[in-house]
Amino acid sequence: MEEMIVFGHKSPDTDTICSAIVMSDLQGKLGKKVKAVRLGELNKETEYALKYLNVEKPEIISEVENGQEVILVDHNEFSQSANNIENAKIKMVVDHHRICDFQTAEPLYYRAEPVGCTCTVLYKLYKENNVEVSEKMAGLMLSAIISDTLLLKSPTKTDEDEKAVKELAQIANLDYQTYGLEMLKAGTDLSDFSAKELIGLDCKECALSDKKAKIAQVNTADINDMMTRKAEIEETMKKDIEENGLDLFVFVITDIINSNSQAIVHGKETAIFEKGFNKKLEDNTAFLPGVVSRKKQILPVLQENA
Amino acid sequence: MEEMIVFGHKSPDTDTICSAIVMSDLQGKLGKKVKAVRLGELNKETEYALKYLNVEKPEIISEVENGQEVILVDHNEFSQSANNIENAKIKMVVDHHRICDFQTAEPLYYRAEPVGCTCTVLYKLYKENNVEVSEKMAGLMLSAIISDTLLLKSPTKTDEDEKAVKELAQIANLDYQTYGLEMLKAGTDLSDFSAKELIGLDCKECALSDKKAKIAQVNTADINDMMTRKAEIEETMKKDIEENGLDLFVFVITDIINSNSQAIVHGKETAIFEKGFNKKLEDNTAFLPGVVSRKKQILPVLQENA
Repeated sequence: MEEMIVFGHKSPDTDTICSAIVMSDLQGKLGKKVKAVRLGELNKETEYALKYLNVEKPEIISEVENGQEVILVDHNEFSQSANNIENAKIKMVVDHHRICDFQTAEPLYYRAEPVGCTCTVLYKLYKENNVEVSEKMAGLMLSAIISDTLLLKSPTKTDEDEKAVKELAQIANLDYQTYGLEMLKAGTDLSDFSAKELIGLDCKECALSDKKAKIAQVNTADINDMMTRKAEIEETMKKDIEENGLDLFVFVITDIINSNSQAIVHGKETAIFEKGFNKKLEDNTAFLPGVVSRKKQILPVLQENA
Repeated sequence: MEEMIVFGHKSPDTDTICSAIVMSDLQGKLGKKVKAVRLGELNKETEYALKYLNVEKPEIISEVENGQEVILVDHNEFSQSANNIENAKIKMVVDHHRICDFQTAEPLYYRAEPVGCTCTVLYKLYKENNVEVSEKMAGLMLSAIISDTLLLKSPTKTDEDEKAVKELAQIANLDYQTYGLEMLKAGTDLSDFSAKELIGLDCKECALSDKKAKIAQVNTADINDMMTRKAEIEETMKKDIEENGLDLFVFVITDIINSNSQAIVHGKETAIFEKGFNKKLEDNTAFLPGVVSRKKQILPVLQENA
């Protein structure tokens, strides 16, 4: 049997890494040989979760080979996927994002639901296929949902995510409030990252009409602390804009304790941001009260105003 | 509650019509208000099925309004969908085709499986949601699967389709062999169609690399009978090529009794067809033994050689 590989998006976050490991476990139990891999370095939050749960991190790859059979989790857009993805055979997708910049030559299994986390969908797949969830896999899925919904506080959270968190916490034998806060906090220690690493930690490229944009996001427990590094972050953003021909770069610093964000915005299309949020940028920054979700509260606003 | 609409592709076939009606029934039972509509006239096979099962045909529409919430069944490509689909809000898709020429601005429910028929997936959704299948809905799903798999003889047929047919035949109280053959035969009576109607009955536009192609298919119990109309069919194909700027037009006459096809091929890119099937066209035609499936046996061949 030829081995399939499963992976999430570039700049991997906790959902992407956990979904790849969990999907490989589920498919294995259904009789398929599927290896989880990753497209980049782990962030500290994910490292915390894997260490706590005593799970090995997947092998890293940078591109896929022609004709390689793959499963995508937690993304579908080719620009967020492995290099050479257009020449792979995509057999399955499990995701919770919009569909864009994606196509296949042949029919496939595609399962997306408008919930807060890919692992919420994966948990349903275990149930539908009558496959038992191990303590470790429950811990991974729990970590992913806590991460994507900021401990069920993000507007992307649905009733299904909440239900899954409660059930998975039981199977994993974890107090999800305590564990979740520790895990999120572990992810906010960004002191030893260079500015370039900071903007790459959780960065998504996206098309806004015919414009090319990047939206990067970091979580913090203290926005002011991160803003002391504004100058070097801006320097790096400008360099990225030039090197990659971007029209807009939005760097979002999200306060996970108080659920607000500060944005740093550069590029020749900053007017899209100003129009969308009805805010004049001051010194290229804007405070966005109540905004924590790139997918639900930032990307659609920019898309509608591009 | 605002009403959603659900529809299948243009040039509707039995799966597209039955899937729309069935999805509206399922969603209704799950508490949503969803109306089934259609994008074109019924073919005789579908007419036979709806009449036999005593089910009303859905209302016809030609385009969707801006912002209308819609569910797509049995297709996803915008070129096969309602006019103005790019300005609708696509909330759900249930399908069994490749994904192409499709995108959304927001997350959605997307369910595709590589099986022979959309109704096979819909039948699974009833089960997953613990919704009882009525005799009428079982009859519709059964008709769709028989149509798409040519009574389980097409290479697109999977074990899941076969299992669904047997279970649905029981619920619908139908001998699926007898009913299925009668239904398929009803669809082959094409004597009162003009050549223009013939090529539009089940016609799909598709991109082959950067080329624009159409592949139309009709089912028959006698290929020779249909070939007596070759001249007028070719006249109409050439006109369509000119009017719509097509690079290739393949008209496929499929013998549902013996599982073979005869193709009539026109356009400036006929070499794609000849290369793909390793056959020299004679008088613009070629016999394709064992070929019955556009999706599995024709489209991929053309795509690989474009």
